[in-house]
This record gives sequence, C-alpha cells and structure tokens, in this order.
Amino acid sequence: MKNWETILKKIILTCKKRDRVNSNDAVYFHGWLMSQISPEFADELHQTGTNPLSVSLTVQDEKPVFIVNLLNQWAIEEIEPLLLNSDFVELDLTSSKQKTFEIIDKRTEDLEEKDLATIFYKQDAARLQELQVVTPLAFKSQGEYYNLPDVRFFFQSIMQKYNSIFEQTQHIDIDMLDEICSKVRLVNYSVHSRRYYIHKAYINGFCGRLVFYCKGTQTLANYVAMLLRFAEYSGVGVKTSLGMGAIKLKEEGNND
Amino acid sequence: MKNWETILKKIILTCKKRDRVNSNDAVYFHGWLMSQISPEFADELHQTGTNPLSVSLTVQDEKPVFIVNLLNQWAIEEIEPLLLNSDFVELDLTSSKQKTFEIIDKRTEDLEEKDLATIFYKQDAARLQELQVVTPLAFKSQGEYYNLPDVRFFFQSIMQKYNSIFEQTQHIDIDMLDEICSKVRLVNYSVHSRRYYIHKAYINGFCGRLVFYCKGTQTLANYVAMLLRFAEYSGVGVKTSLGMGAIKLKEEGNND
Repeated sequence: MKNWETILKKIILTCKKRDRVNSNDAVYFHGWLMSQISPEFADELHQTGTNPLSVSLTVQDEKPVFIVNLLNQWAIEEIEPLLLNSDFVELDLTSSKQKTFEIIDKRTEDLEEKDLATIFYKQDAARLQELQVVTPLAFKSQGEYYNLPDVRFFFQSIMQKYNSIFEQTQHIDIDMLDEICSKVRLVNYSVHSRRYYIHKAYINGFCGRLVFYCKGTQTLANYVAMLLRFAEYSGVGVKTSLGMGAIKLKEEGNND
Repeated sequence: MKNWETILKKIILTCKKRDRVNSNDAVYFHGWLMSQISPEFADELHQTGTNPLSVSLTVQDEKPVFIVNLLNQWAIEEIEPLLLNSDFVELDLTSSKQKTFEIIDKRTEDLEEKDLATIFYKQDAARLQELQVVTPLAFKSQGEYYNLPDVRFFFQSIMQKYNSIFEQTQHIDIDMLDEICSKVRLVNYSVHSRRYYIHKAYINGFCGRLVFYCKGTQTLANYVAMLLRFAEYSGVGVKTSLGMGAIKLKEEGNND
C-alpha cells in the first residue's frame, strides 16, 4: 500500500533590505549550499535525474528573499538543520565580490504528499489557474534551450519532476500529457525573455504571468492543479537548483 | 526573364483624435471596403489563398490610423482610387453603433519587388532584427490557433504570403524554412496575449516586441531581412485582412 509520508519543505529566508539585488546570486547561494553538505549527499545530487533541491532569489519590498525547496527526506535532513540553526543569521556569498546578506526572518512551509492527493482526489480545483514565473524559466528539448511558455513543455517538465520525486523515475505517462495538451490552454499571458547568468555563460529564459484554463474533466483539472501546486516547490524547466524556473500560484479566490 | 514590376502599396489614413479607439474596428473597416469593391474583385478575394489586402487600425498620438496594404495590381486598381479620392474625407463605420472617422491626413508608401531584391542580393542586412507586433497575431496549425511567437510559424507564414503574392503558390521551400529555424533565434522578446474580436467571436493572438538574431550566412540574414520587410505589408499569421498580424520593423541604425 502506498504511504503518503513524503514531505516537501520550503524554507524562506528574508534578508535585510539592500540596494540592487541580482537574482543571479542564487547561483552563488547554491554554490555555498553545496559547500555545506555531506560528500554522500553531494554524490547523490550528481546522480539523480531531478535535483531534490530547488532554489530561488527574489525581491519583496526591496528585501532579498532566498527560497530553498527540499524535495526529499535526505535533502531535508542535510539542509534544514543548517538553515534553521539559530546561529545562522548571516549569509556570505562570494560572487564577483563578497556579499553579505543579513537574515532577518526565517519561515517554513510544508507540502505533504497527502496534501497533493487531496487536491487530486477530493477537491474541485479551479479550471482557471493563474501563476507568476518569478525567475527565468527555460526548457530543454533535443539539446536546445527553448524559452516560450509552451503548454507541452511546461507540464512535461512538472510531470517528470513529480515522478522523479515520488516514483523515482522520470518516465511520464505520454497519454496523460497528450490529454493535458489537448485540454489545457494558455488563455492569457504576459511574458518577456530574461537571461540568467550561470557564472560566465547564460541561458535565455522567460518571466511573467501565465493563465491556464482546463476545459477537460474535473479529474483532469484536479490533476493540473495538483501539478502546479507541486511545481511551487519543484520549479519548472532547467536549472531549478541554480535559481531558475521558480513559479508562484496566484492565491485562490481570485480565479474567476 | 523575371520582371520586377510588382508593387506593394501602403495607404495610411490618419484620422482626427478620438476618445477610445477600438482596434477591432478594423473588422468594420474591412466590411466597409468590401462594400465598395467590384463584384469581380470580391470573387477574386474569396478564391485566392492569400488575401492581397491587409488592414490594420492602430493609435498614434491618440489619433486612429487606418493602414491598408495592397499587395497586387488588381487590389491597387480597386482600392487606391477609392481611398485617395479627394472627396473621401470621412469614414462611416457601422459597428455596434455608427462611428464617423474624420480623415485628416493621407499618405502612401510603396515597396517594389525590386526593393526586396535589393535587400536580398545587395545589402548586408543586419543580423539583429527588431520589430513590434502592433495588432494581435495568431497562427493556425492543424486546425487550431496558436498564439506564441514561434520562429517556425512566424517565418512559414511570411514565406507562404510572399510566394502567394509573387509566385501565385502557397508552396514554400521546406529546406529553407528548416534552415531559418536552425539559424534564427528569438533572442529577446516581450509579448502578451490579446483577444481580437471578429464580430461575436474572438481569436486569441499576441502583441509586443520581438528581436530575432540570424547566426547563419549573410545570404540567409538578407533573406530574413527581406521577408520581414515584406511582412510590413503582408502582415503575419491569420486574418491580416481583418486587422490582425500587423508588424512594424524598428528603424534601422538602432540594430547593433
């Protein structure tokens, strides 16, 4: 019997207001995190298809906010004690120059696998799903990066991450993806391209607002809602552990 | 021997400032134009694959601007005398309510086939091409509308219109299109979806800014530049005769 014990954890570190925050600093934050973990976990990260860690850096009210999502138990055990340790009040990143971030608030959110099951099995999810792509998002297809909000690439990426985290396989149900592609429409959007620098190179991604509408069965709408809720933790597309592809769903109640 | 006599003509009608201009009024403007033409030309329009007429309504300095592009000799003979007639100073459109547009300026621009040949054969066209999609643009593929700035759909549409106007066939060179897809990148963009109402129904299109970069040969860059110049007259995508898919290239000199 399936157990519903897997927990995803979001750790939100709000820092003291700074002039000019560069969201590319998430790359250096990731580097710093990697320097803190055990060699065994580092090995694991290099081997798994989907990284059980997604990271982003955004700015809210001029304050830098680092978000770390931990997508399996091992990641939680390695990273949570480190970030929630009461001695950890300052983050020193070595990018082009040394940058210190003073942490003024720590907050966590959990998403249990059973919460996702509830969305899928019980809830009448909204057919209209609005979300913000907050850090540059890109897909990879046939060796090339692609940076438009294509419905197929979008949901394929989430399904792969979902299966990788919960089923230990990146294999997805293509019939289900086809069903999503035929029934889910990007009915409204406003997006712009944005380059994301990873050290000296960059990937061209996009940020902005997306509104999907699901005209399929309620079950499909529930499935789509569940995938999007999961994606708030996993991110979408490439390099989510380095700060790309973070999304945020619009609060419910505003969808109609 | 090929003659380079085909002329494309742009007629620009600037109207007196109005409160609230609805770019969907181009649909009614098209209806009015159709009521003025000969039955023979109307028959021709219904039969040809690519309409030799593209229309748009935009607003510049709060003034409605109707642009009519005439893409073959017959269209020029039918429409030009009508619009340039000195007695034609007021346009009455019957949409939801009667709307009168007072025409305060008329201007024409020509694009000869030999101008396009010059871009292709002689000019070292800029590899970076920036343009504005000024009225909602959508593509049709496999019976469905598609409203993202896909490179393949974009250039396929222009190549079809180009061949239709100059070669009387919508058949295009697929190898050339593949070459464009492999060498032309949408390196920068900012677009948003926008619905275009055609009477009671609507098509979901997009407007915004696109920057293409051609990393292929100079010949390919010239070809791309020529297609985009042509597209300022033909429009791109579906329903260009009803006001959709108007594009405007950024003035040269800013491309570097």
